[in-house]
Parts: sequence; C-alpha cells; structure tokens
Amino acid sequence: MTTKTLNEHLNWRYATKKMDATKSVPQEKVDAIVEAIRMTPTSSGTQPFELLVVTNPDLRAQIAKASGDQAQVTDGSHLLVFAAWDNYTADRIDAVVDLNVDVRGDLPMLRAYYDNLKANYLPRDADVNYEHAARQAYIALGVALVAAAEQEVDSTPMEGFSPEAVDEILGLKERGLRSVVLMPLGYRDQDGDWLLPMGKVRKSRGTMVSVID
Amino acid sequence: MTTKTLNEHLNWRYATKKMDATKSVPQEKVDAIVEAIRMTPTSSGTQPFELLVVTNPDLRAQIAKASGDQAQVTDGSHLLVFAAWDNYTADRIDAVVDLNVDVRGDLPMLRAYYDNLKANYLPRDADVNYEHAARQAYIALGVALVAAAEQEVDSTPMEGFSPEAVDEILGLKERGLRSVVLMPLGYRDQDGDWLLPMGKVRKSRGTMVSVID
Repeated sequence: MTTKTLNEHLNWRYATKKMDATKSVPQEKVDAIVEAIRMTPTSSGTQPFELLVVTNPDLRAQIAKASGDQAQVTDGSHLLVFAAWDNYTADRIDAVVDLNVDVRGDLPMLRAYYDNLKANYLPRDADVNYEHAARQAYIALGVALVAAAEQEVDSTPMEGFSPEAVDEILGLKERGLRSVVLMPLGYRDQDGDWLLPMGKVRKSRGTMVSVID
Repeated sequence: MTTKTLNEHLNWRYATKKMDATKSVPQEKVDAIVEAIRMTPTSSGTQPFELLVVTNPDLRAQIAKASGDQAQVTDGSHLLVFAAWDNYTADRIDAVVDLNVDVRGDLPMLRAYYDNLKANYLPRDADVNYEHAARQAYIALGVALVAAAEQEVDSTPMEGFSPEAVDEILGLKERGLRSVVLMPLGYRDQDGDWLLPMGKVRKSRGTMVSVID
C-alpha cells in the first residue's frame, strides 16, 4: 500500500489508452477495488446497481466489438461493468428494508422512510428511475477510479459502447439491469500509450469553482 | 494527513445527520476537497459542471428551507453545490478544446475528436445532455466523499431538495447551470446524531457482484 494522498492518486491516474496485455491485476487488488464499490454510499442506501467483473476472454472480445474496438477491454485483465437497475420496484426496495432491519433492528422510522420512498419512486416512469439509479453507479465509478489508483492499477472509465449490445452479451436485460459504464483494469503499456506522456488537462479553479460568502 | 486506506475512509464516513454548528472546516481542508473535485475525470474531459462553495449564512438558510429543513445545510460550515451544465453548447466544448490545445498543443486528432463530439452532442435534446452532465457531477461526488473522509471532515450527500428553488437562490439558471446534488461539510455532533451509533448497511458482495470468468 502506498501512502499517497488522494490528490496524488488523482494526478497519477489517467484514462489509460493502451494496456499491457501480458500483465494481470492480482486478485487482492481487484478485491480492494470491488470492496470500495460495495462500500460506496448511494441515495437512501439502495445501492441500485450491480457490478460485473468480467475476465472471460470470449465475452470481453464481444464487448470490445460493442465498444468500437477499444483495446483496453481485452488488453486489461479485468473488465468492470456497472449495471444499474432498470427501475425501482417494491421487491427491490423491500430487500433494502430487510437488510436495514437485519443490521439496525426493526425501527418504525426506518419502515416509514422506505414506505415514503416507495410512494415516491414506484409511480415514476421507469426511465426516470433508471436515470436516478445510473447516477448512483457514477458515484461508485468515482470511488472505483480512486480505488484503482490507490492499488496502482490502471483503468479507463468508458462510456463509448453500445449499452444494448453489452446488455445482450451479458444477459442483463433478463436480470432487470442496464449497463451504464465500463471500467477495464490493467497496467499501462509504458511505451505504447500515446496519452501517457501528455499533460493532464483540467480547468482552473477559477473557471469551475465559485465561492459565495 | 492520515495514512488510512480508501476502504478505511469509506468505513469511517457516514451520511452525517447532525453537525456541530460551532465547528468550522479549516480552509486548507476545503481546498483539498475542492482540488479533488477539480481533478476528477469526466467524459471526454469536458468537466460539464461547476462547483459552488457556499458559506453565506442567509443563502444557506434559504437553501435549508428548499431542502426540507435539513439542518446540516446550516450546521455545517461549507455547503458544496454541484451544478451541471443545462446543455452542451459549441461555446462550452470549444473552451474545452482551447484548454486542450494550451496543454497538449494543436493536434489534428484532438480537433477531430471534439468535432465529432459536437456532431453527436449538439443535436441532442437539452435534457439528454443535462442528464449526461449530471452523471459526470456524480463521479465528482464520489471523489468528494472520499476527499472529505481523507480530511476527516464529515459530509452528507443530499438529493432531497428542490433544484428549481436552489437554482433560483443561487442564480444558476442565468448561468446555464442546474443544481444536481448538495454536500454540506462540517463535523459530526458526537452526541446528537442518531445515525452515528448505528451500523453501516451495505449489501453483501454476493448480492451485488457477479464474477464472469
């Protein structure tokens, strides 16, 4: 484990374009990244997404095809697929309530809270609920990018793929899930990645931050 | 600076319900959190959101009213407001291109990339673009929650507010921004927060993670 600060991690990481296909991320590093995703806070604690950790070469080759042949999907050793709930349902929220009762006891305020949440969420269009669930997956994406950097594992957040195709390849639709974002894990090809020597581009604080005091 | 791991930070943090109104987060800690948000990776490097750091008591009192009187908004010392672009525009993307040219030089592939992006984004409905921008703000939310924990600063991610009211209070609409999520910063009230003694609730790995090998 390094003792870098978060901002050092954020400076170290970059959207790796070329990974070294001969290197594999050790299981304990994958586990630490997955654990950070599992511990990510989400709206009302619903954790409305699942994580698929794909190492299968055939499936990753198919997913690469569905993502414009981005080589990191197959050159990395693990592909993380964040798949959001396609909708909020009573069953899904009840399972969250059950888990809360297990950990915190059967508190009336807890049941009232989730009854109210169901009254708000269940009548909404599935697309509104899916968008809300997808946003929660993006919180986990942010945490996962930090987790990978902490483990000195390279990664690339990837939106450029056909969600319908990936859902089909992984059988997500039948499970009520929709793929939201991909994140290959691996190790940078130190000599082969055109992006590596380039400077990081970020807006100045003055451009994106306003202080209102 | 602590030397905790990311997963220790994620276990330490919680959605603080009651903050100690007598304590203020030191500027250097706020700066470290803001810096992490600024360094957060986003889709195509557009960073399509702004961050407002609100300390003004009157404005925070108004925002508290617009968020169901959640006391952390005023009991914390700083309120972070993540405000996404209401749409992608040619001007906004051109500014990203200019910044890239400043840092990386005037590369043809860079211009081709963003020309293609404009061809994809600009014809889309504003709401589709806003939703995409809002997701990017959620990546930063995930990073910010880690950043606060690293600084041993308490925080609460907060969706339960009226975005229209907050946009009005902060004059965001005129700036082409829409408030997405709030994050008060402060210090837990060690004795007054009912949530603090309760166990953290998270799904098991078996529930939310599938390995496909």
